[in-house]
Amino acid sequence: MDLSIFEKARSVLTPIIRKTPLNNISSLVSDVNLFVKLENLQHTGSYKIRGAYFCLSQLSEEEKQKGVIAASAGNHAQGVAYAASKMGIKSTIVMPQYAPLSKVNNTKEYGANVILHGANFDEAYAHAKKLQQEQGLTFIEPFNDYRIIAGQGTIAFEILNQLESVDMVVVPIGGGGLISGIASVLKHLKPDIKVIGVEAEGAASLKHALTTNTIGPLDNLNTIADGIAVKCVGNITYEICKKYVDDVVIVSDDEIAQATLILLEKAKIISEGAGAASVAAILFNKIKDKAKNIVSIISGGNVDVNFLERLINRGLILQGRKLCVMVDVYDRPGNLNKLLDIFSQEGANVNSINHERTGHDYISGYVQVEFILETNGKKHAKRIIEILTNKGYNPRVRCKEVIECDE
Amino acid sequence: MDLSIFEKARSVLTPIIRKTPLNNISSLVSDVNLFVKLENLQHTGSYKIRGAYFCLSQLSEEEKQKGVIAASAGNHAQGVAYAASKMGIKSTIVMPQYAPLSKVNNTKEYGANVILHGANFDEAYAHAKKLQQEQGLTFIEPFNDYRIIAGQGTIAFEILNQLESVDMVVVPIGGGGLISGIASVLKHLKPDIKVIGVEAEGAASLKHALTTNTIGPLDNLNTIADGIAVKCVGNITYEICKKYVDDVVIVSDDEIAQATLILLEKAKIISEGAGAASVAAILFNKIKDKAKNIVSIISGGNVDVNFLERLINRGLILQGRKLCVMVDVYDRPGNLNKLLDIFSQEGANVNSINHERTGHDYISGYVQVEFILETNGKKHAKRIIEILTNKGYNPRVRCKEVIECDE
Repeated sequence: MDLSIFEKARSVLTPIIRKTPLNNISSLVSDVNLFVKLENLQHTGSYKIRGAYFCLSQLSEEEKQKGVIAASAGNHAQGVAYAASKMGIKSTIVMPQYAPLSKVNNTKEYGANVILHGANFDEAYAHAKKLQQEQGLTFIEPFNDYRIIAGQGTIAFEILNQLESVDMVVVPIGGGGLISGIASVLKHLKPDIKVIGVEAEGAASLKHALTTNTIGPLDNLNTIADGIAVKCVGNITYEICKKYVDDVVIVSDDEIAQATLILLEKAKIISEGAGAASVAAILFNKIKDKAKNIVSIISGGNVDVNFLERLINRGLILQGRKLCVMVDVYDRPGNLNKLLDIFSQEGANVNSINHERTGHDYISGYVQVEFILETNGKKHAKRIIEILTNKGYNPRVRCKEVIECDE
Repeated sequence: MDLSIFEKARSVLTPIIRKTPLNNISSLVSDVNLFVKLENLQHTGSYKIRGAYFCLSQLSEEEKQKGVIAASAGNHAQGVAYAASKMGIKSTIVMPQYAPLSKVNNTKEYGANVILHGANFDEAYAHAKKLQQEQGLTFIEPFNDYRIIAGQGTIAFEILNQLESVDMVVVPIGGGGLISGIASVLKHLKPDIKVIGVEAEGAASLKHALTTNTIGPLDNLNTIADGIAVKCVGNITYEICKKYVDDVVIVSDDEIAQATLILLEKAKIISEGAGAASVAAILFNKIKDKAKNIVSIISGGNVDVNFLERLINRGLILQGRKLCVMVDVYDRPGNLNKLLDIFSQEGANVNSINHERTGHDYISGYVQVEFILETNGKKHAKRIIEILTNKGYNPRVRCKEVIECDE
């Protein structure tokens, strides 16, 4: 792709989008300078507005008048709806029936006609294609379109403008639109900057494509990062990534959950799973290439609050700050107190207590009690387990592997 | 206070602090333009670094060499620790024994010698004063000190610089240091700008002082906004507030919880309770004065994640998005299914089910079952209650008043 289309996108988008902050979060890592580009603070809560708006701005008058349609369970829906409203274009968005309510409501609030259809994205997509033909609408692709890629690429101009010396840019990959845009601009202007893609373990469609040399779909998707859960990259994005992307690395869901929690707690940044993936890649040393000044793209912050609660919870367990332990207690008044004394002496706060009286030992006088404790980290959790073991409580820990690995 | 000390503070702080973003969040309100000054993104996660650093920079060489001490359970601790480390000054921070672990750890990480002492802030404070005398340290006040106030006031210069037309600035009040600084600068430079203070209902020490004309302490403190839970304002801050603050308004804990959730969900902003108070004042129409361009100060984002979970939860209940309802079910196989069918038909997701078999009706065959449901808002919750009532399930709702008031 020629640089001129990106420059055109920049001039169209400059008055429309937010120039999002580039924050230094180097205190979270050692040895490198880490910056985050906060597209979670972009209009609609993600970068998707960039590509959507530029794409819509390039339609013919006739296309604009007839209206546009898109299929999406998330950020693309909100981007298209917002961009269309800004331009006075009618938009229809087909979302799967069980899309998170907050995303459905936001898309409606941005002015789209939302149709809930299908049990998953593929069914919603098929329905949107059908409506497009019936009603003569223009279909807005989520990533595999030069105009979309051009819009997303405008982030790269901002980064070069905000930070004098950049050695590496780390970008989450779903369908590949974001990284295709950013890599194209950077490799034109500053080819020495490394561009690294990050995929979730359960949705590594680009890695799969690069390995097998085919963009054929993954058999299934399994990741908490719904924003990058895409079965196959596009043919356009694939070709660009093959040419420009220096490496693709993989992060696990547990790594994403921990990165989300660390961003939230230490940097006050709300990120969706996809957005945290690019920081997880740094925190968990996934990248072989060395670099001093690294920019990770936080692609979005549209995380459902109920889901955020689960992410936080999983992150706390993985950091050894929430300990779920089941013990055997001889079922007599006073015995529970003894346990509580141990926890209070050790400074562990009790979150919940659950008695289980159907175990096979109950008949012999023992009840199983499950505690959820707030602890200070793996060392602390380990010490509590040791004390319980030494006192004969036979502790069984949920997610035992977590506290057994090193801090 | 003369403007020159604020200008001095500005020149000292400019290379040290972050010029934090001023974001437009007008989409969350109607009729006004609402901006938030994001001091949650400041170093140490709150504005406190401003006053602490400037204060320390003004110490004599001898004072610097001997070191400083402060008492704090939160943001002031982190601000002093960070500022002292930056200047190579030894710092000791006394924190109450049960201070949130994350804040203790952060203060240590910023380089302070942390001493945990006392059951509450007053006891920690007394111990710090004792150590100060014994060891010849300099005590760094949290708010009642001209140098501290001067540092906090530098926020006002940034606001004037970031936004051309400001009609009102809304500031959370704990001890009054932040608002004293901001009001002093604004009333010198742009006296037409209204300065409104916000206090939590259970910690309205300035309101109390202004009403009774005495800064005597409140009998007790009771608020979720620990950052502004201060029993009495200072004599210096009191005099400045009396002179410059146009009005002081009060927000409840429930309003703060809702504002926290709205900021988190709609604006991707992590705020502690104190920080959200200034936005709650706008969202819940607490301010009589009219204004078009309003800036609310998000004073900090240091909220413990466990506590954040509770804030989110309370916010969801207050918005009618989490419904806790107890019903009577005749205790036979199949009867629970009938209830679940109702919930699934109505699109309410079941979060938890709890059977209570010790009620007085159990003997006659009825069991009480409590459901926690994810609902879409008050209307949706109300409809579910109506259906349950019509079908004879005798629903009892926790926080009933919430879903009975208007959306």
